[in-house]
This record gives sequence, C-alpha cells and structure tokens, in this order.
Amino acid sequence: MKTSEVLIGALEYIRQFNGQIFVIKLGGEVASNDKVLGGIAQDITLLNWVGIHPVVLHGGGKGISDLMKKFGKEPQFIEGLRVTDEETIDIVKMILGKVNTEIVAAITCRGGNAVGLSGKSGRLFLAEKREKKGIDLGLVGDIKGIHPELIELLIHNNYIPIISPIGIQEDGTALNINADVAASELAIALKASKLMILTDVKGVLTKEGELIKRLTTSDVDRLIDTGVVREGMIPKLNSCINALHSGVQRAHMIKATEHGILEEIFTAKGTGTMLIPK
Amino acid sequence: MKTSEVLIGALEYIRQFNGQIFVIKLGGEVASNDKVLGGIAQDITLLNWVGIHPVVLHGGGKGISDLMKKFGKEPQFIEGLRVTDEETIDIVKMILGKVNTEIVAAITCRGGNAVGLSGKSGRLFLAEKREKKGIDLGLVGDIKGIHPELIELLIHNNYIPIISPIGIQEDGTALNINADVAASELAIALKASKLMILTDVKGVLTKEGELIKRLTTSDVDRLIDTGVVREGMIPKLNSCINALHSGVQRAHMIKATEHGILEEIFTAKGTGTMLIPK
Amino acid sequence: MKTSEVLIGALEYIRQFNGQIFVIKLGGEVASNDKVLGGIAQDITLLNWVGIHPVVLHGGGKGISDLMKKFGKEPQFIEGLRVTDEETIDIVKMILGKVNTEIVAAITCRGGNAVGLSGKSGRLFLAEKREKKGIDLGLVGDIKGIHPELIELLIHNNYIPIISPIGIQEDGTALNINADVAASELAIALKASKLMILTDVKGVLTKEGELIKRLTTSDVDRLIDTGVVREGMIPKLNSCINALHSGVQRAHMIKATEHGILEEIFTAKGTGTMLIPK
Amino acid sequence: MKTSEVLIGALEYIRQFNGQIFVIKLGGEVASNDKVLGGIAQDITLLNWVGIHPVVLHGGGKGISDLMKKFGKEPQFIEGLRVTDEETIDIVKMILGKVNTEIVAAITCRGGNAVGLSGKSGRLFLAEKREKKGIDLGLVGDIKGIHPELIELLIHNNYIPIISPIGIQEDGTALNINADVAASELAIALKASKLMILTDVKGVLTKEGELIKRLTTSDVDRLIDTGVVREGMIPKLNSCINALHSGVQRAHMIKATEHGILEEIFTAKGTGTMLIPK
Amino acid sequence: MKTSEVLIGALEYIRQFNGQIFVIKLGGEVASNDKVLGGIAQDITLLNWVGIHPVVLHGGGKGISDLMKKFGKEPQFIEGLRVTDEETIDIVKMILGKVNTEIVAAITCRGGNAVGLSGKSGRLFLAEKREKKGIDLGLVGDIKGIHPELIELLIHNNYIPIISPIGIQEDGTALNINADVAASELAIALKASKLMILTDVKGVLTKEGELIKRLTTSDVDRLIDTGVVREGMIPKLNSCINALHSGVQRAHMIKATEHGILEEIFTAKGTGTMLIPK
Amino acid sequence: MKTSEVLIGALEYIRQFNGQIFVIKLGGEVASNDKVLGGIAQDITLLNWVGIHPVVLHGGGKGISDLMKKFGKEPQFIEGLRVTDEETIDIVKMILGKVNTEIVAAITCRGGNAVGLSGKSGRLFLAEKREKKGIDLGLVGDIKGIHPELIELLIHNNYIPIISPIGIQEDGTALNINADVAASELAIALKASKLMILTDVKGVLTKEGELIKRLTTSDVDRLIDTGVVREGMIPKLNSCINALHSGVQRAHMIKATEHGILEEIFTAKGTGTMLIPK
Repeated sequence: MKTSEVLIGALEYIRQFNGQIFVIKLGGEVASNDKVLGGIAQDITLLNWVGIHPVVLHGGGKGISDLMKKFGKEPQFIEGLRVTDEETIDIVKMILGKVNTEIVAAITCRGGNAVGLSGKSGRLFLAEKREKKGIDLGLVGDIKGIHPELIELLIHNNYIPIISPIGIQEDGTALNINADVAASELAIALKASKLMILTDVKGVLTKEGELIKRLTTSDVDRLIDTGVVREGMIPKLNSCINALHSGVQRAHMIKATEHGILEEIFTAKGTGTMLIPK
Repeated sequence: MKTSEVLIGALEYIRQFNGQIFVIKLGGEVASNDKVLGGIAQDITLLNWVGIHPVVLHGGGKGISDLMKKFGKEPQFIEGLRVTDEETIDIVKMILGKVNTEIVAAITCRGGNAVGLSGKSGRLFLAEKREKKGIDLGLVGDIKGIHPELIELLIHNNYIPIISPIGIQEDGTALNINADVAASELAIALKASKLMILTDVKGVLTKEGELIKRLTTSDVDRLIDTGVVREGMIPKLNSCINALHSGVQRAHMIKATEHGILEEIFTAKGTGTMLIPK
Repeated sequence: MKTSEVLIGALEYIRQFNGQIFVIKLGGEVASNDKVLGGIAQDITLLNWVGIHPVVLHGGGKGISDLMKKFGKEPQFIEGLRVTDEETIDIVKMILGKVNTEIVAAITCRGGNAVGLSGKSGRLFLAEKREKKGIDLGLVGDIKGIHPELIELLIHNNYIPIISPIGIQEDGTALNINADVAASELAIALKASKLMILTDVKGVLTKEGELIKRLTTSDVDRLIDTGVVREGMIPKLNSCINALHSGVQRAHMIKATEHGILEEIFTAKGTGTMLIPK
Repeated sequence: MKTSEVLIGALEYIRQFNGQIFVIKLGGEVASNDKVLGGIAQDITLLNWVGIHPVVLHGGGKGISDLMKKFGKEPQFIEGLRVTDEETIDIVKMILGKVNTEIVAAITCRGGNAVGLSGKSGRLFLAEKREKKGIDLGLVGDIKGIHPELIELLIHNNYIPIISPIGIQEDGTALNINADVAASELAIALKASKLMILTDVKGVLTKEGELIKRLTTSDVDRLIDTGVVREGMIPKLNSCINALHSGVQRAHMIKATEHGILEEIFTAKGTGTMLIPK
Repeated sequence: MKTSEVLIGALEYIRQFNGQIFVIKLGGEVASNDKVLGGIAQDITLLNWVGIHPVVLHGGGKGISDLMKKFGKEPQFIEGLRVTDEETIDIVKMILGKVNTEIVAAITCRGGNAVGLSGKSGRLFLAEKREKKGIDLGLVGDIKGIHPELIELLIHNNYIPIISPIGIQEDGTALNINADVAASELAIALKASKLMILTDVKGVLTKEGELIKRLTTSDVDRLIDTGVVREGMIPKLNSCINALHSGVQRAHMIKATEHGILEEIFTAKGTGTMLIPK
Repeated sequence: MKTSEVLIGALEYIRQFNGQIFVIKLGGEVASNDKVLGGIAQDITLLNWVGIHPVVLHGGGKGISDLMKKFGKEPQFIEGLRVTDEETIDIVKMILGKVNTEIVAAITCRGGNAVGLSGKSGRLFLAEKREKKGIDLGLVGDIKGIHPELIELLIHNNYIPIISPIGIQEDGTALNINADVAASELAIALKASKLMILTDVKGVLTKEGELIKRLTTSDVDRLIDTGVVREGMIPKLNSCINALHSGVQRAHMIKATEHGILEEIFTAKGTGTMLIPK
C-alpha cells in the first residue's frame, strides 16, 4: 500500500475512534513472551496517545495451575470452571497480581500511564457465588453489578487501566471471575465501541483453516450450530455476541502478535476476524 | 515501508503535534488546479480531524494581473512590490475573495469546517502604508500589529480559517500585504509550531538541482550568500527564517502536490525541505 | 422629549434587549454613501457595546449589474431573479466581497469588532439550485439548511458578523441567494428577536404616502391584497412575515439613514414601520 | 439636545461603565420624601439593569435625634460626632433599620432586587472604638478593616445591596460609623469606579452660589483653604478626596432629586459637581 | 457513653447531613440571655463548619409589647394575632432589627459568617394582607410566595443567614408575619431536611409531663385531638406538620439551651422531641 | 467526658482537618486480625466520609518470610534489609497483593470506596536499585521520584487508595521498597498534614514503659541518642522526623487497635504519641 494511502486511512480511523473506549482482553500467557508483550504494550500506548481509551482486562492462564501444583494441589475443573477453594483463590490472586504487574511494567516503560487494579477496587465487579445444582465450585463468581465510575475517572484522566478479573461480594469475599465474560460485561458497562479478544489463533477459521475476515452475530450462530468453530472458541465468541447485542459496535478476535492491534484497528484490511451486529 | 511502521510513525507524530497550530501558505495558483486543490483540501481536513489546527493563508497569484489587463490596466512592480492604486486594490480584493471562496469550497465539500476571512476581520492584520523614499507604491501595507484572537477562537472551536492577506489601517483603509510575510507573522502571533510554504518546486535545491532535506537557519544564510538559492526563493526563505527566529519550531518548503502535506508531516522522510532553528 | 425621559426609555429597552440577536439587512447601495454608512456603522457598534448582538446581512445592489456591463455582459432577470452563469457568479462574488469589506472597514474604524464572511463559511447557507420548470436561472439557489453555529460562536464572543448571501451546495458549488430571504431565514435560525430591513423609503406607506407606524402580519396581508403596497416592497414584506411566523418577535422596515437604527430601537416612537405577529 | 445625541451619549457611557461598581450614599432624609425616593429607586434599578453594580450606603439623618427625644434623651455632639451610649446605639440601630427597609421597599417595588444589610453582616465593617483623648464618645467606631466579599457576592449575582453604617468590633459589639466615611471606604474596598454623594444642595458652589461642574482634588484643597466651601460640605468633600486618592476614578456631589443620578451619569453635562483625581 | 461511640455516631451523622439545610427557629427571648445565645451561636457555627447549612429565622418576642408600652400603645391580639397599625409595624421592625443584630453579633464573634436580613430582601417573603372577615388586623400578612434564591446563594457561599419575619407586598408595604409559619414555609422552599423549633420547654410532653422522644405526624394529630398538647404548642406543632407534609424529613422541638442543638442533631438519643412523617 | 464536650471537640477537629490528606501506614499483620482490621477499616471509612482524605500504605510483614519458607527459601537480611532475588520479589508481590486485597475488602464492605494499587501504577514510586558497597541486596530499591498525580486524582474523587510499596525502575523492573520510608515520602509528596504509623505498641515509651504523649523532633533525637527508644522503633521514628522536616505537620505513632485512629485524631487527649516539628 502507498504510504499516503496508509496515512489517509489511519487518519480517518483516528478521527472516527477519537474519545472512544476499546476493551482489550489479553490471556495470561502474553505476559511470558517479552517480545509480544512489548509490541502489544507499544500499540496500547499509541492508541492512548491518539485519543482512544484502551482498557485492558487480563486472565491468569497456565500460571495458576503451575503454582497450584507447586503447592501440591491438583487443579480440578467442572464444565470448564475451576473449582476454587480458599487456598486456590489465594493462588489465583497471586498469579493475577503478578501478570497484572508485568503488563503495567511493559506499558509504563514504553511511556504509557498504566494503572493496575483488581475488580474489587471501587466495587468494579460486584459478584456473587455461582450457584450450581449439586456441585460446589467454591469461590467462583458471577458478576451481578458493575460500577464503572473508577475506570471512567481513570480513562478521562488519560490513564490506561489494567484489570484482573477478581470480583467482590457484598461481604468483602473475593471471587474468581471468567476473564472473557468480565471483558464483555466491562465493555458494555463502559459503553465501549470495541471489544478485542487476543488469542493464540489468527481469528475465526473456516473448516479449511482459512481466516474469516468479517462475521455478523447471526453468521456466528450458524457457525456454532454447524460445528465449524472449535470448542475453545465458543465461550469467547459468546462473550463477543453478548457485547454486540448490548451496544458494543464491533468485536474483534485476533492473534496476540507484536503489532496486530494497530493493523486491525487502523487498516481497512485488518489482521483477524471482525464481528458486527447482525 | 511496512504498514505497521508507517502506522507507528504516524501515531507518534499525531501525538506530538496534538493541539498544535500549523500555518500553511498556499499560492493563488493552487485554486486553478482542481486535482491538486482537492488533495490539499483533504490533507488539511485530515489534519484538523486528528487534533492539529491548520490555518491557511493564501495569495492571489497571476489572477490579479490577468484581471487588471482585462480592465485595461498595466501591472507595475517596484522592487517586486505591486504598485496598487484605488482601482488595483479593488481588483486585489476581488481576486483574493474568489481564491478564498474556492479554497473554502474545496475543504467544505471534503467535510472540513472552513471559514473564509480577510485580514481586516477582527483587526487581524493591522497595517500601515509602506513608506518608500521617493516612490509611492499606493495601497501597499506593512503589518504593524496582529490581533490573533479571532483566529484563536475559530481554531479552538475546530474551524479551519482560510485567510486572504488584506490588512486594515486604523482609518479603515484596506492595504495589500505580501502573503509570505503575512503567513510568517501570523505563525509567530499564533505561536504556531510549523510554517509550511507550498510552492511550485520540490523544496530548496542544490546547484545540481538536488533536494536538500534539512537546513538550519545558518545553512540558509550561507546558501543565499553563495548564490545557491534562486532569486524567487529568497523572500520565502526569509519569511521562514523570520518565523524560526521568533519561536516557530519548524518551517517547511514543499511542492504543492496532492498529498505532499501529509507525507511531509507524518513520515520521517518527508517530501520537501525542513528548516530548523540553528 | 426631556433628557431624563429619553434616558429612562433607552435604559428600559437596553435591559429588555440584553443578550438578544438582531438581524439587520443592508442594501448594497449603503456602501456607496460614506456618511450614511458611517452613521449605520456607529449605530451597529453601539448596539454591540450595550449587550445586543447585531448580525448584518447585505446585498450587492446595483454594483453587480454595473460590473457585468463593464465586462460586456447584459444583466438578465426572470421573475425578478438574476440569471447567473459561471461568469456572473464570479462577478457577484467580487461585488459582494467588496461591499462586505467596506462595511467591515466602516464598523472597525468606529471601534466595532466586525468579521466579514460569506454564507459558505461553516456551511452557513447550505443551498441547492433553484428548480424552475423550463427556465434555467443558472447558479441561483434556495437555502435548504442553515448551520448557525459559526455565527453563534462569533456573537457570543462579541464579534459583529457581516455576511454576504452566497450559499454552498453539498458539492462545493457557490450559489447566489436572495438577500432579503437570507436575512429572514438567518433571523429564524439564530432565534433573533428582531429582523430590521433598511431600504430607501421611510417604511410602509399608505396610498397617501403617509408612514404606517405599526402593522400586524394580517394587516400586511390585507395591504398587499388591496394593492396599497408598491411592488418592490412585497418580497421584503414577505420576508418579514415569514420571520414573524417562525418566532421572530418584531420586524422593522426603516429608511437607511445616519442614526435611524438607534431611534427605531430605543425610542417608543421609532422612525419607520414595526411589524408584529398578528 | 436631539434624541439621537442623547442616545449615542448614553450608549457610550453604558458601555464604558459596564460591570463597574458605583457606591451611592443617600442621606437618611430621602426616605421621608416618597417622590424623590421613588425617582432615586428607579434610577438605581435602571443602573443595575444596564450592567452597572450600584451599592447604596445610607445614613439615619434627623430620625435618630427625633426618636431620642421621644425617649427623653437629649442628643449630644462632640466635634460633630454623636455621643452614643448603650440606649442611643439601640435607637441608631432601629432608625437605620427602618430607613434601610424603606429603601429596600422602594427599589423592590420598582423591580430591583434589593438586599438590606448592616455593616455587621459578613464582618463587612470591622470596627474599633474611636479613641479621643479625654472624651468618651461611647459606641462610636472607626473602620479598621473591610471584608467586601459578601457585597461582591451579592453584586455579581445582580442584587443591589443597601447598607447601613453599623460596624462590628471583634467581640461582637455594634459601633456607630459615620456614613460618608463608610461610603468612601467601601468604594475603595470594592474598587468602585464612582462614589456619588447625594445631598440637599446642587453640588459644590462658588461664593456667588454658582455650581462648579468639575473639580480636581487639588482644586478642592484650595477651595477649602480659601473658605469657599461651607462647613457642612467639608467632611463630605474629604470623603471624596480620600476615595479619589485610593483609586476611585470619579466622585460626584449631587442633589437628591428624582432622576438626578441618571442625568449625572449618562450625560456629558451632568447635574452636579464631578471630582477627579488631580 | 464511650468516647469512641460518641465519635462514631457523630461522624456518621455528619456524613449523612453533609450539604443539607437545617432551618432553626429561635424565639426573640434567646437574644436576652447571653449564655444561652452564646451556646446556640457556637452550635450553629460548628454546624456550618462541618458542612451543614444552618438558616436561622427568629421572632421578636416580648420586646415588641415592651416597646409599644414605652410608646404608650396597648398591645392588642385577635385570635393570637397582633393587631398591627402603622406605628406598630415600625416598632416590630425596630425590635426584629435589634434581635437580628444581636444574633448576628453572637455568631460573628464565635467565628461564624452571619448575614442579617429581613424577609423583604431579595423578595424572600412575598406577602399579602391577611383577610379576616369583619376584623382588620392591619399590617399582618400571609406568605403568598417565597423567593429562596438569595438564601441559597448565601448558604452555598458558606454564610449563615439570620432572617427576621417581615414580608413585602407587591407595592413595597412591609407586613408582619408569624415566625413559626415563616420558618416552616422557608424550610419547604429551601428543601431543608430539618426544621428545628427552639422553645422554652423540653419538647412535647405527656400529660404526666414526660418528654416524648419521637412522634409521627399522625401521633401529633391524635395528641392534639385528645387535648394532651398544651395550647401554645399547637401552632408550633402545626408548622412542623406542614413542613413534614411538604418534604422536610425531620422536625424537632427542643428547649433553647446552651448545646441542645448539637446533642439533638449528633446523638441517637437527642434532647427533645423529633417528629417524622407518618 | 461530657457528650457535648466530645461533640464540640470533634466538630472543631473535623473543620480543621477538612480536605486534608492523612497518610496511614499499616503493618502487614493487621490483615490477619479480623476484628482489628474491621475497626481500622471503619475508622478510615468514617474519616473519608467527613471530608478527610486517608491514604493507606501497607507492608507485607511476616507473610513474606512464611511463603518463602514454603517454597524452600531461607529469608536473609543485611542491615535489616531483605535480600531480594527474582523469586523473592515474586513472593513479595504475591503477599503484598494479598494483604492489599484484604484491606480493600474490609473497607469496601464497611461502605468505603477503596482502590488497591501498587507503587508501579501511574509511576507512583519511581525507584532505582539501592547501591551498597560490596553487598548485592538484589531487587531492593530507593525512591528517586514520586508521581502523586494518580493518588491526588483518586482522593479528589473520594476514593481511598490502598498502596503496596513496590516501586518501578525506568526499565519497568519491580523493586521492593521499605514501607515506612514509602509512607513518609508519600506524605511529603502529597503535602499530607498527618503521617500515622500503626504498630504493635502504644507509642513511644519511657524507659519505665510509660507512654509519651507528645514529642518534638529534637526530643526524639535526644531519646535516640540516650538509648531510650528500643531498636525496632528507630527507623519508624526517622521516617516521622523526615516527614516533619519536609512540611508534614504532625506524625503519630499509635497502636493498631479497633478505634485508635479516631480517638487519636478527634480528641485532645489522643491514644498514642504525637510528634511535632521542633
């Protein structure tokens, strides 16, 4: 592409996105790849510099299970949800705290003004224990109310919030919350215009493994019904659909690469899959 | 250049230039080339969209002499300054008004919010008749005071001012002012960070006709002294030097082409000559 | 009248009109009478000084036809509308620009803070070509939308806008607009409380030539029906009625004299004809 | 004078005085003449309506001695200062309260937004007992500090303060303060541009009884030295001079008549004596 | 009570009452007891310091009848309302002015920022003569409209308004208004959260003379119906009920003692009777 | 003490402290005593409710060494500073994160609006590795610059920041910082009026074990010189002295008990030791 075309395109997107909020979900594993984390941190910092408000929500990833094993505990999942006893929630907090701190550091040393927070601060994620007939998952929670004021305050003062998905119950108890769900609910509460989920694949793929550039929410329903989408993708796609149904304008599934965020946002072609409301 | 590199570069410049004022001087002849005028109008509109405040000052160019001849008057110059009698100043006003209106139209239909003004409005260019021993140049003026408040009001409300170089004397008389000088003085009064002069050559050239990308004010003095710079360029370079000596950070001499402004501003390489204070 | 009575009356009107917008329409011919133009300029400046927001809209008058003839073109009218080809619109722009600049100068040298504009700036008069079955009037336009924000910005910062009736089509084309109609539409869009039309007669006259001091909109309809009003007056009266039907509180038809505006506004007796909604 | 001249003059003064503070001192006796009080109240209301901030300070006049006699007390003066015992200060408060309330009423029923206050409120006149060697004047005070914030708050919210000259000592004791002195000090503290003292004569007169229209502070010194000014006038003139020496631009001595204030302020000729700094 | 309990309780009330308006009605007689007035003044000052907006409305009490007798007039009451002729209203104004000034002084010398006003200022109590079939009460008024803007301005700038119950008729006439009624209406107009009436008894008492700590509006109706409440209390209770029916949250009847206000407000136990809406 | 005395005292302190910032340092061990933590959380919440801005800085305490042992690492100290390798800093982050989250929870469920942060966020504690001749302490840092803007933003929006003492080096590396030092430096940077250090003893004691209520900075120097103060106290006292020398008005050493903070702040007697500048 000619330089002037890239410039014209980028300037138009910058204008269009000015003052908008983008919620970006990072997996816990990005924190362990310095080069990728560095590129992502630079992209997020640049977004912030040109008038967009990025808000990062991250998971803990493999680190939680690793530390559990170190403590001699066997990770246990029921329907994809981690059984979380008192000791496990402490491990979750520790690992999320560590990932959080590494993302904050990466953005800070690239000039961004990052603020690390958990979802307990300012009652951000007010949660309650998930009820499951018969099975006790322990300290696993559903979001029952979001107080976005603290995040709004920070972004309107040009900080970049980095949030770990710990919720707080009315009585002060910490609860473990699914990170994709938290990102989706946060995007809705902040009236974000975009939800971006970074994963380890290029986006949504056809059966033949080809990238699908653009999908409507009803396309997605069909893809799920016909079994095209592989299993691990389904909850992430559902988080996207939830956001698109509640006012978020665009959701993106892209691979966590060095400058994937910038190219996805500022070029017409993009790098991953963009989802739009039907 | 890779797309992501262009993007990263552009975003960094956008951040750096945010909220800054750029005074852009156009010659009257751009108004007669629809394609070039269209590209320039788009560039100016895009600058404005990403948080830069462009202020355009234009000349009247060849149109003035053409119309004078139509009215049966012979254009007359003394030391490069047009002798301007009552009838001539009317012709100057008419042509400048027409050029102004065409630039306003080109920007407006590309989505920019242009406002056409002469230097009389809001006492912008307070002028007095130029004194020349022995020779009466007529209604030709020097700027003796600038009131930038009107322009500041407009740019802080996101309008793009398009200004013709007519000054006003205390008694209300209109005076013809040199456009390059007016652009330079305006840049100083507005505390602009850039003065860009668009001409019909690529920039400042060596004797061999090669473009010089970067010059300090003292380099320029030397080039003039050694006769490298061709004559028509000298007053323009002096306007640039004047601006750089009074706080303007960068001056640019570039060719009036379709997207030359964008490339000069948002890439490290640029397209013309950049002048910096010694 | 006793001085203290004049003072008390004037102070009460000043309070009543504080912060209100008055749209004043001047014919192009006032620009050619220095004494009258001077008096009017002083009145407008004084209005502005005591907290009223005058907005001036002017025509081009006889000057357009004069210049056309100079260029060897024969002015042509269809149902009172000037046939306006490409060359004619250039002449219209030139003459309006010249009249505009003279009003700006007259106000400026009396201490007012005038800003000269055409209706293209800030998309003030968004226009479209007038459709007339069978006859092509050329570049003559009807207002299809007004963007008063630029004018509001200027008056709230104490500038006096002087506006020429050129409209802009979506594609950037300039169109010639009737000045009385433009003044009326502008008064409505600005939520002006008064529309004042300055002409060459004392106001609306009876068949016997006596001035009528006060008329309702329904009185006017009757006067037109019974043929009392002379032909040239009818479009001006229709502009007044249009304004009064759309929220403007008072319309005035007065003669363009040295201090006619002040006496009409600040004394109970006035000098011309005041029109009020039925 | 022609109506248009009165208007032009008045409008120019209105502009010049816009936002300025005028301290107007009324004697207690105006409250007993309904017609004069009515005219003055209308003038003050009109001043306020056209953007001037009038602040009224009034005395108690003859009413105090009258009420003292009613209570069987003989008024006693030492060097023109009323000897003020406990009982007398109660009478002073009562009479000042009554005059205050009548001025408030007169302005209120003419549409002004009057607020009646004593100098105790908001610590306006912080006072201390006057020390006089040998003689105890009782509860008579000198101003030792002014807190103008309350008055500034009121006038910036378009109220008209009507103030009685009671001061407050640190310990809460009420002290009687000379009204002319209080008006002068208040004008200085408020950075008023005018101090107007209304009396029962036309202004400062020559020995032959002719009104002097204009005096500098040094003229006044000479008039006092040469015995031209009658005795009762001297403290009033000293209050004016004090004000003019401390930044007040103009002081006026005029007769308390129906519309004397308006004519003095808004015509070049005026009605009384204007004093200016040397 | 333990110190930490008192503190915790007080801090919670302070938070709860922050920014709220309390209308406090004082009888004229408090002004004659220095110790009680001093304690009340300190309490009111402290309320103001911790973010509550106290507004004081006072009566004139026995002083009016005393002064009338001094002037040889016999006080006369019809159905508890004072017959008020021209001379009497002057006496009322004088006594209210004196009480007002003493409350202002007591608060001022304890560091509060008191402002003394009558209900005429800023048209606070717009009143009309009370109509009573057959009997002329003279200058006695009912409130027909309240303009609370002046009081709101003062309290939002941290002044403590001290108000005497004089109303103003459209024509400027002063009218005597019942102080309990004025306090109640003022509390409603200011959207006060509390109305506190200070009297000479501990609160509402049972037939056995025991203090009732808490009453609903319907309890009060029953107490009046069954004759438990002694006669002088009834109009005060009706003022409370009126306020509670119109949005005031709590009304209090307490004895005027040194620090009764603080204990009533900042402890759960209180000192008098608290009334709440049914 | 009488209730009214406690109230008057408390209200005066509340006024005096309004809008001030108090930095409160908690040891990591308070997080393990639910009752004490609850009382402290309530006190901090109440401070915030009455207009004081509490800022909490906490340590990690014994938990760090405990977890190190769990991981099979032997804690090692050089001159009282923990040798901190890569693994240890991860443990420090985890424990501080856990303590932080528990304080946030305790305040949140008592109604306070707590926000948990580490000193990396918003570049709060910009640190550099401590240089020690010969001995490598590892990831232990000194504060070299504080950016208090984020904390100021939060407290001016009524949040209660809970901060863990992790600093950030320019290159993004996390460094362990001494909590007492961090509290002291933070108090200075925030222009706090108080620094309160909560410990496990009643305050500074005499050799006989009696509490000293009040000390000047020079008293403290003497106590240290004469060996009265026990060793563990010395660095804490030095932090206090540092703060007092740099503009903090009061430092307090008190025992971490249920409502010790409130009594220390709002009563004249207090509960611990208050330190004042010489």
